[in-house]
Amino acid sequence: MTTLSKRLTNVPASPIRKLVPFATQAKKDGVKVYHLNIGDPDIKTPEVMLEALKEWDRNPIGYDQSQGNPTFLQSLLSYYHTLGFSFLETKHIQVTTGGSEAISMAMFATCNPSDEMIVFEPFYANYNSYAVVNGVTLVPILTTIEKGFHLPNRETIEKTITKKTKAILICTPNNPTGTVYTKKEMDMLVSIAKDHGLFLLSDEVYREFCYDGKSQVSLFSYMQEIPELAIVLDSLSKRYSLCGARLGCLVSRNEAVMAGVLRIAQGRLSSGLIDQVMAARLTDVPLSYTKDVQKEYQSRRDVLFAGLQNIPGMILPPKPEGAFYAIVGLPVADAEDFCTFLLTTFRDHNETVMLAPAAGFYGTKQYGKNEVRIAYVLNSDAIRRSVEILQKALEAYKKK
Amino acid sequence: MTTLSKRLTNVPASPIRKLVPFATQAKKDGVKVYHLNIGDPDIKTPEVMLEALKEWDRNPIGYDQSQGNPTFLQSLLSYYHTLGFSFLETKHIQVTTGGSEAISMAMFATCNPSDEMIVFEPFYANYNSYAVVNGVTLVPILTTIEKGFHLPNRETIEKTITKKTKAILICTPNNPTGTVYTKKEMDMLVSIAKDHGLFLLSDEVYREFCYDGKSQVSLFSYMQEIPELAIVLDSLSKRYSLCGARLGCLVSRNEAVMAGVLRIAQGRLSSGLIDQVMAARLTDVPLSYTKDVQKEYQSRRDVLFAGLQNIPGMILPPKPEGAFYAIVGLPVADAEDFCTFLLTTFRDHNETVMLAPAAGFYGTKQYGKNEVRIAYVLNSDAIRRSVEILQKALEAYKKK
Repeated sequence: MTTLSKRLTNVPASPIRKLVPFATQAKKDGVKVYHLNIGDPDIKTPEVMLEALKEWDRNPIGYDQSQGNPTFLQSLLSYYHTLGFSFLETKHIQVTTGGSEAISMAMFATCNPSDEMIVFEPFYANYNSYAVVNGVTLVPILTTIEKGFHLPNRETIEKTITKKTKAILICTPNNPTGTVYTKKEMDMLVSIAKDHGLFLLSDEVYREFCYDGKSQVSLFSYMQEIPELAIVLDSLSKRYSLCGARLGCLVSRNEAVMAGVLRIAQGRLSSGLIDQVMAARLTDVPLSYTKDVQKEYQSRRDVLFAGLQNIPGMILPPKPEGAFYAIVGLPVADAEDFCTFLLTTFRDHNETVMLAPAAGFYGTKQYGKNEVRIAYVLNSDAIRRSVEILQKALEAYKKK
Repeated sequence: MTTLSKRLTNVPASPIRKLVPFATQAKKDGVKVYHLNIGDPDIKTPEVMLEALKEWDRNPIGYDQSQGNPTFLQSLLSYYHTLGFSFLETKHIQVTTGGSEAISMAMFATCNPSDEMIVFEPFYANYNSYAVVNGVTLVPILTTIEKGFHLPNRETIEKTITKKTKAILICTPNNPTGTVYTKKEMDMLVSIAKDHGLFLLSDEVYREFCYDGKSQVSLFSYMQEIPELAIVLDSLSKRYSLCGARLGCLVSRNEAVMAGVLRIAQGRLSSGLIDQVMAARLTDVPLSYTKDVQKEYQSRRDVLFAGLQNIPGMILPPKPEGAFYAIVGLPVADAEDFCTFLLTTFRDHNETVMLAPAAGFYGTKQYGKNEVRIAYVLNSDAIRRSVEILQKALEAYKKK
């Protein structure tokens, strides 16, 4: 009898989505579920983009160019120029089907099978999936709740480098921790990459979402210093509330990388035409849109943390500096069991909350068992109510 | 200094797209280029689908479910039921971002790195890309122009099976040859799969496009006989002229395959929301649409072959039975050189033709050097004119 490939078995279930069947059942039973498990914002997509749908006049819906829709590429370029990275040209940009594809392509481009890529745990759980799909070994370095998930020192990082290490993958502002790496941290990473000849991959999907007057230090700022090593991974999903549009990009000045990922892109023909034509209008989105969204998330974060601080036994990091996630420790031994309890058993006025168990965001097995990732993607009232439900559920869970 | 992964270097340039820069330059120079290189039809997408864009009322554009948009899944199921495969349920369907993703997922699911997959050459060139990306070794078995690219006998196929062989991948109606496998051929393949415990993967993207009263023998007809081994790969791109919508699916009754590909799908979150909502209207597309499209392609094929028969030195297969491609031999030693000549040098009344050199559709290096793939995706007048240009270009090329 034939068997599946072993590697298929190794693809992990998404910790963000694996409890979905329980949530679906709860909703079927008429229970209202507050979704704090997934970064799927309730913020509106800019109307100027949706107008592209109403005004649609192309027929047939043909393939677009493999590198990306030319107008969309120009829009992306103009966006990066506005950020001050005027050295970029369209040839440095490969449009991808979501940030997911950008990360996957970057892994394939930089690592041969069983080569190593350094990541800082907890990290975006889907990195695990892309690593299995691309046969890459992730080497996690621990960051801790106490230090706000900031990076360990240079020595700690350097001692994990082996002959098989090809790249360091970071995410700033960070999913799942909300941490924004400082200029000092970015300087250190760039220096390590340079000294050891490693690719530095920076997932900057949450670039605009920094709080308390802070701002992101982008790998783009170093792209002229390490043009061969720097690869930025980006997505429009969060910036414009376009998660369902599946659009991102991979940006690098390394010509061989760009030529290689274009060949991969040719194999899958093109990203979606309609999504790209719609998103090309990003240049028409007023600057106030992003500022308003940033303000909204900051105030949601404040509401969330004000609430969490009142729950006994919670282990909280310093307030996250960016993105719209927080990793928090719960007063339970097994957060996945508690998350399942929330969906299958606990109800408060027929409402409950969905959270993502954090263990799936760690590469090391024993870590994060008591932690959850909270995505503060709902409005402040919903967050307040979610925290209330969480507190009551913890009490009920203790008494079980 | 760091280097790229070796496997990135191994990803082939698409033979369908690698000459695009020459075509772009020709168009910049004001030359009209007839595109017979790519299966990007000029047939209109059904209006009832495009109305979904005009009527768009969702905001934000959020993620959809990883398995697929529930309404779209129901529409796909209803389509397969209409074809007579009433044993299928939505749990047997995984929505994919284009047929491309379905093929790539199937390779990953059935083969470990360096496992072997049997294909019949010439084959859809992008299989090469997916094979490199998934670390799979394609083992090509030759089919020839003289036999209309029909399959060799059982013995020839069986002698390529080794301990590493995990699957046979077919495409019927075939891209790039247009061949439709007979019931006898399908019976043989199913019997081989069964006897040797091999997965049988069937790319059926061109299911509806069969000519001269013939019809496709689908692997679905055998899915109850070999439920664990049969995987159908499908796409909406050609059926509804939706190439730019990036929608396909993988269909299997093997539960472990479906659970595994869903985990891969969770990693990339979801296919495009807008594309899926639009395509869900496939149940509203009148049956006449598909019939008209099928008739239109048949008449284009006839126009193409009537023209090609008048060009001296052409090596033609029997008229293809399906899809909208033909592999034909040209009276030149190096078809890629001739295709480049067409784009860079030859002009007739400032017009030229773009064809896909066929060597990239073979897995074996020396094959197909004098052949091209012609996609008859333009209207009959454009095809007539393209054939005229081709004839004149061949004469000019001989005199070079």
